Amino acid sequence: MKLNMMIREGASFRNRVDLNCDFGEGYGSYTFGQDEELLRYVTSVNIACGFHAGDPRTMREAVERAAAAGAAIGAHPGLPDRRGFGRREMAADPAEVYEDTLYQIGALGGFVRAAGAELRHIKPHGALYHMAGRSEAIADAIVRAAKAYDPQLRIYGQNGSLLLKAAELHGLRAVSEVFADRTYMADGTLTPRKMTGALIESPESALEQALRMVTQGAVRTLNGEVTTVQADTICLHGDGPHASSFAAAIHRGLAAAGITLQRPE
Amino acid sequence: MKLNMMIREGASFRNRVDLNCDFGEGYGSYTFGQDEELLRYVTSVNIACGFHAGDPRTMREAVERAAAAGAAIGAHPGLPDRRGFGRREMAADPAEVYEDTLYQIGALGGFVRAAGAELRHIKPHGALYHMAGRSEAIADAIVRAAKAYDPQLRIYGQNGSLLLKAAELHGLRAVSEVFADRTYMADGTLTPRKMTGALIESPESALEQALRMVTQGAVRTLNGEVTTVQADTICLHGDGPHASSFAAAIHRGLAAAGITLQRPE
Amino acid sequence: MKLNMMIREGASFRNRVDLNCDFGEGYGSYTFGQDEELLRYVTSVNIACGFHAGDPRTMREAVERAAAAGAAIGAHPGLPDRRGFGRREMAADPAEVYEDTLYQIGALGGFVRAAGAELRHIKPHGALYHMAGRSEAIADAIVRAAKAYDPQLRIYGQNGSLLLKAAELHGLRAVSEVFADRTYMADGTLTPRKMTGALIESPESALEQALRMVTQGAVRTLNGEVTTVQADTICLHGDGPHASSFAAAIHRGLAAAGITLQRPE
Amino acid sequence: MKLNMMIREGASFRNRVDLNCDFGEGYGSYTFGQDEELLRYVTSVNIACGFHAGDPRTMREAVERAAAAGAAIGAHPGLPDRRGFGRREMAADPAEVYEDTLYQIGALGGFVRAAGAELRHIKPHGALYHMAGRSEAIADAIVRAAKAYDPQLRIYGQNGSLLLKAAELHGLRAVSEVFADRTYMADGTLTPRKMTGALIESPESALEQALRMVTQGAVRTLNGEVTTVQADTICLHGDGPHASSFAAAIHRGLAAAGITLQRPE
Repeated sequence: MKLNMMIREGASFRNRVDLNCDFGEGYGSYTFGQDEELLRYVTSVNIACGFHAGDPRTMREAVERAAAAGAAIGAHPGLPDRRGFGRREMAADPAEVYEDTLYQIGALGGFVRAAGAELRHIKPHGALYHMAGRSEAIADAIVRAAKAYDPQLRIYGQNGSLLLKAAELHGLRAVSEVFADRTYMADGTLTPRKMTGALIESPESALEQALRMVTQGAVRTLNGEVTTVQADTICLHGDGPHASSFAAAIHRGLAAAGITLQRPE
Repeated sequence: MKLNMMIREGASFRNRVDLNCDFGEGYGSYTFGQDEELLRYVTSVNIACGFHAGDPRTMREAVERAAAAGAAIGAHPGLPDRRGFGRREMAADPAEVYEDTLYQIGALGGFVRAAGAELRHIKPHGALYHMAGRSEAIADAIVRAAKAYDPQLRIYGQNGSLLLKAAELHGLRAVSEVFADRTYMADGTLTPRKMTGALIESPESALEQALRMVTQGAVRTLNGEVTTVQADTICLHGDGPHASSFAAAIHRGLAAAGITLQRPE
Repeated sequence: MKLNMMIREGASFRNRVDLNCDFGEGYGSYTFGQDEELLRYVTSVNIACGFHAGDPRTMREAVERAAAAGAAIGAHPGLPDRRGFGRREMAADPAEVYEDTLYQIGALGGFVRAAGAELRHIKPHGALYHMAGRSEAIADAIVRAAKAYDPQLRIYGQNGSLLLKAAELHGLRAVSEVFADRTYMADGTLTPRKMTGALIESPESALEQALRMVTQGAVRTLNGEVTTVQADTICLHGDGPHASSFAAAIHRGLAAAGITLQRPE
Repeated sequence: MKLNMMIREGASFRNRVDLNCDFGEGYGSYTFGQDEELLRYVTSVNIACGFHAGDPRTMREAVERAAAAGAAIGAHPGLPDRRGFGRREMAADPAEVYEDTLYQIGALGGFVRAAGAELRHIKPHGALYHMAGRSEAIADAIVRAAKAYDPQLRIYGQNGSLLLKAAELHGLRAVSEVFADRTYMADGTLTPRKMTGALIESPESALEQALRMVTQGAVRTLNGEVTTVQADTICLHGDGPHASSFAAAIHRGLAAAGITLQRPE
């Protein structure tokens, strides 16, 4: 890895980035993901709010743990589909998305308030995240819900998505998210999971992509070209057998390259 | 009805009372109770928060309607038992009651904030209301959840219950609730629903009991004696075929007797 | 209405039809529709199985009532979306549709067995009905679930739908359903609800359409043409303010015209 | 361990026993317990039916795996409390327990039928198991549900419980269950989990207790006495860090002692 070269050729040089992960996605007697391990490597967490995952107990615990670790706390609202883990798209009326999102933000907000912490951002989960990325009406509904709760809330959305545009339109801070372990297409979108080459399987390659995205605002696409991205935050996955080692590798590699890891302003 | 006489003999003369009803207890395609009619007669409402009844849509609508009507808004948290409408007692760990209550308060609070309204009180629902009335640990859990959210919140609890004691212990305002359509036992508790004579079936008798409770702080018991009650708020039921006419009779009768109907201070 | 003429010009003369309605769609403390009234007019019922509506109590009661009234009993499986009443389309994996459908059929089948009755048909509900009508994979999943439970089960599906084709492919009896209170397009599909003229608002017009569909196998389309339909069963809606009077009008009108009302063979 | 001596002194010598475990208790994206490992050691499984745990997918898979492994299949109905994993007692109306149990049996029965397998027994889960052990009305409700579905179903219940008595009263086969990893009180009931000494922590002691229960119909109690038990089946726990090694030790130890491990007749 020729870091110096990579950094030198960067047009939009940046030296800081946020690392986020989903958090508190258990339910009742069920656990999910590697919250404890991931918490060592991230600077912000997205806490499930009881729709696609989570319940009042997991939420209270997640808020307290994140606060104790100094991670920035965000709400992670999802579709009302616990069995499908919020990953199945549903026909969603924007008015209902607004209501469901506000409900979930408020519910998490109660625990944040009780912990004397701060609710800083919103990142929709799974199918809702993707729907918000490409539907203006859904994006608008989510941003309005966040704004109605607190206009200071940041909106985490996929790089280049309509969700980020909606945030800007409503005057909320947009935080552009990129992925270290997913490849990109020529148009700047993620390679669909089902396609060959969608996943980056080695921590080294993931780190290399992360570095380039942060320092150069660029990512090499599947077909060998380069496209621009804005890397305000990098999503670290908390599930999967290698989640923890991936997160560690990226955290350490970025730090070693002189990147400051910190929550979005 | 000799109102003058009733009022004159009262030891603790009061001339104001709150009228409350449960509100927004539908779910999805299902409706419940006579919200619209009741809203004309009450001065405060307890809005279901999505556990025993209600969902984000019913909550948003209920908050907006109550705010428009000038009714004081409270959260109506229940046990996590939608099928049982929160009426079945469950083995409840106080820590879980705290978490569930805080979740529900927060969720409703989001809609209240979005409506530019004020969340003023908490009244637990159904089985949770009764459990909180006789269990110190459950009462404490509910009051702590309310206090963690906002120490200005009032606690509605049954006259003489441990819930009101817990509120006072924690420095929250306790609002003592009485029932116009239920008879009382010698110890000041309600006659269990299954016993003969538990329900007051005529609006006239209900009004008479309401008046006496408010103006004299007294209620005649099933066995003919008189026991004391503190009537800060009277619960009006929103379901049942005669809900609306009962509510109207009590509202009008109290007003005609010169009682001021208004939200608790 | 010139019934004689209508009947005479019919190519595929039929003199019998089934009338079906959805049944037992309450939940917990919530009621839905006009089950008792509708039961007088239908010859078969589709009982909700606890996913989009219904619960073990409503199912037991619905089975017992239908059996007592002599109505043929069918399962009415829906998507796992109680809040949306099974009306919102969801991304559905056919394997999951198979499993969900088999679960629901089995659950209802227990009550049917306990009542000494017979489970005769399956009719998917709401969004699942429509998805099964136009997706071969979904249709196949539902039919396979029914067949795995009992190859004697009939499949109710929309006239001309892929669900009926799948039933035939698997050797199950296909029962073609038509609607008396909805208008049809030139291609034999229903006019979408949102379009003007989608609903037939008078009982007389609905009866006229019903008669023509049964006796002539034809329906006049929105644009004035005539298209063919196979009317094995007519769906009577159980909700809405006029549900009962519509059902009564169609039942009586068909009987008066000499049509035998009976369950599918 | 002096097995020979233990066996010789046994009054009611038996040389066979069933080993059962709970099975298929995941949900959606969540897994639970060590199904695969346990399946090697048990002769019957109790499959969760979607109330306290499980969903249509886990049920189909569990049935297919159990059938492939040759384990006897039973339904494992629980209280409608997924978040509490069916471990919290609820105020349960016997009529509702009947309905909920029948629903769950039927739902599982569909998958069993589809797999060409046989549903052989019912074992209530968690709080429902304990409630059925000490309440005649709840026990009766569960047994009636099983009988309504299929009078050939066996009822697994705790040794000495009212559930087994109810089974006998209704003419169903009662299968008496004992625990290898729990200590017993003088009255033949289990030592409550919260008491010191409730759990047997070493596989050797568990095996010793299992052997004695099977071969002698006896168990040494916490206070050093001996009480009688009928060991038709031994429950092996599938969760906990040592579940698999415990199960292996008991399976092997019993087999080595010449006990035939097989499903109840």
